[in-house]
Amino acid sequence: MDNKLVVGIDIGGTITKVGVIDVLGNCLSKATINTNKYSEVDDFIRALSHLIYKLFSELNMGKNLKGIGIGAPNGNFFKGTIEYPPNLNWKGITHFVDLMKAHFDVPIVLTNDANAAAMGEMIYGAAKGVKDFIVITLGTGLGSGIVVNGELVYGHDGFAGEIGHTIIVINGRECGCGRKGCLETYCSATGITNTYKELLNKNKIVPLIEDSLIDAKYINKLAKEGNAIAIEAFNYTGEMLGIALANSVAYTSPEAIYLFGGLAKAKELLFQPTIASYNKNVLNIFKGKTKILPSGLNEGDAAILGAASLIGKYN
Amino acid sequence: MDNKLVVGIDIGGTITKVGVIDVLGNCLSKATINTNKYSEVDDFIRALSHLIYKLFSELNMGKNLKGIGIGAPNGNFFKGTIEYPPNLNWKGITHFVDLMKAHFDVPIVLTNDANAAAMGEMIYGAAKGVKDFIVITLGTGLGSGIVVNGELVYGHDGFAGEIGHTIIVINGRECGCGRKGCLETYCSATGITNTYKELLNKNKIVPLIEDSLIDAKYINKLAKEGNAIAIEAFNYTGEMLGIALANSVAYTSPEAIYLFGGLAKAKELLFQPTIASYNKNVLNIFKGKTKILPSGLNEGDAAILGAASLIGKYN
Repeated sequence: MDNKLVVGIDIGGTITKVGVIDVLGNCLSKATINTNKYSEVDDFIRALSHLIYKLFSELNMGKNLKGIGIGAPNGNFFKGTIEYPPNLNWKGITHFVDLMKAHFDVPIVLTNDANAAAMGEMIYGAAKGVKDFIVITLGTGLGSGIVVNGELVYGHDGFAGEIGHTIIVINGRECGCGRKGCLETYCSATGITNTYKELLNKNKIVPLIEDSLIDAKYINKLAKEGNAIAIEAFNYTGEMLGIALANSVAYTSPEAIYLFGGLAKAKELLFQPTIASYNKNVLNIFKGKTKILPSGLNEGDAAILGAASLIGKYN
Repeated sequence: MDNKLVVGIDIGGTITKVGVIDVLGNCLSKATINTNKYSEVDDFIRALSHLIYKLFSELNMGKNLKGIGIGAPNGNFFKGTIEYPPNLNWKGITHFVDLMKAHFDVPIVLTNDANAAAMGEMIYGAAKGVKDFIVITLGTGLGSGIVVNGELVYGHDGFAGEIGHTIIVINGRECGCGRKGCLETYCSATGITNTYKELLNKNKIVPLIEDSLIDAKYINKLAKEGNAIAIEAFNYTGEMLGIALANSVAYTSPEAIYLFGGLAKAKELLFQPTIASYNKNVLNIFKGKTKILPSGLNEGDAAILGAASLIGKYN
């Protein structure tokens, strides 16, 4: 049946997005609920299920649910679990798919949010027909999904693709993961904020606004207005990202790397220094081969589409 | 037919090893020729072909050649080429498989030497039945072969798996590839030699032998005798390798990483600091999952076996 629908769910630390997607990747209906309002996962799943039923009944399309795809931080594809997520209320290991199955009698697939983004890019986005690529999601942290020969790399335990937690500077910046020098401490919304503050400090410049209000969006705005320190912060972020991407290419030699998320929306401010640093730092045999491109997914629906795309292959 | 044979060829900068392998992975016959004696690749291939015919006629097993597998530096699996090898006489791009086909009417497969080692490990070595693993070859440089879901990762251009040329220290040691800070400038026979010399210098110690005679084998011998500087050189090599392996696990989350080649033969001298550093530096979700192990291949035949194992899958 061509009118079958898939539900895509993107679980974030603050909000969870839910969308109903048709076979062409159109988002027919969507809504959000607050993730952090629910201290118990059972309550969250009850509210989530109600929301899905509500969206479906409003669409008036009958019982055409083909499956549910879920992107979640620290999501495990093999086990359907969310394990030790740093920014969610549910600590330890949550058997999320099993809990959802009490409410829905359809295939339910879960993976981490960056892997879902990579699947979305492959099925609905810029990576259609591309067999070897990497998606880098530049949000609060740095997530990644690696596709090799048309297949998402899950690794032996379902947790592969944590490029944000490769060490780019030995004994570098402190990371939320408890270690030092992880890529995401340099290349993410948090990373560029820290870089900008370091640059202000180094140049003995008093910030124009309160310290707690400085974020990636603000730095982006300043840079677009020509603020030298903000531009330098983007240049440094791109320089570090370019080195990291050169390393990534040495691993899986992808045809393309897609940058996705808030920071990537700064466009040339980020892409120009990133590509310059990449070209400078990539190994000779790879030079000029791998394209570094913006994501082809619509920012608003991308996470939902990515999650929904997990279902495509399993039916 | 069970008595079919495969020829494995390992092309090195100095010597090329050739072996005739049976279906069980026994090396029935082997020989070497000097690679660097031949300034023209045509002359080399003629000599190599003669050697293969000679080995076969001596075995008296008739025309049972099933295929030829070749491991070569900068070997390209997709194109059957050797491209810009730093240590061979044949510059630029050599269409090695095409040239060999003028002499043999059997399937001929070529890949880089570390990929061949990974295939050998999977078919004849310690990685039998392991679907996600990485082989690190610690020779003059550092090579790597990455296996994901039972398949070698070639990337879009056939050159994936160059972990030795990921940048581990930004603006670090100068590498033969023209860049700085590559992993192989720290973790390889060349790397540990440089580390040892740096440590002598730092501690103002006059070397016991001529500078040009200091190599990894000598440092290994000294370390086994309890020489503190030599042991420190191994500890530093292991520390850097442990960080790099933690990064590798963040990419593909392998079940095991196998260390192969000269430096790995130092056993505990290398494994102890490597594993200690790995455990310290690996991301929480991967802790205690990935085994770091010695190769299961016999050092003498490993490169030949690896090359021969390339044929297994194509017939």
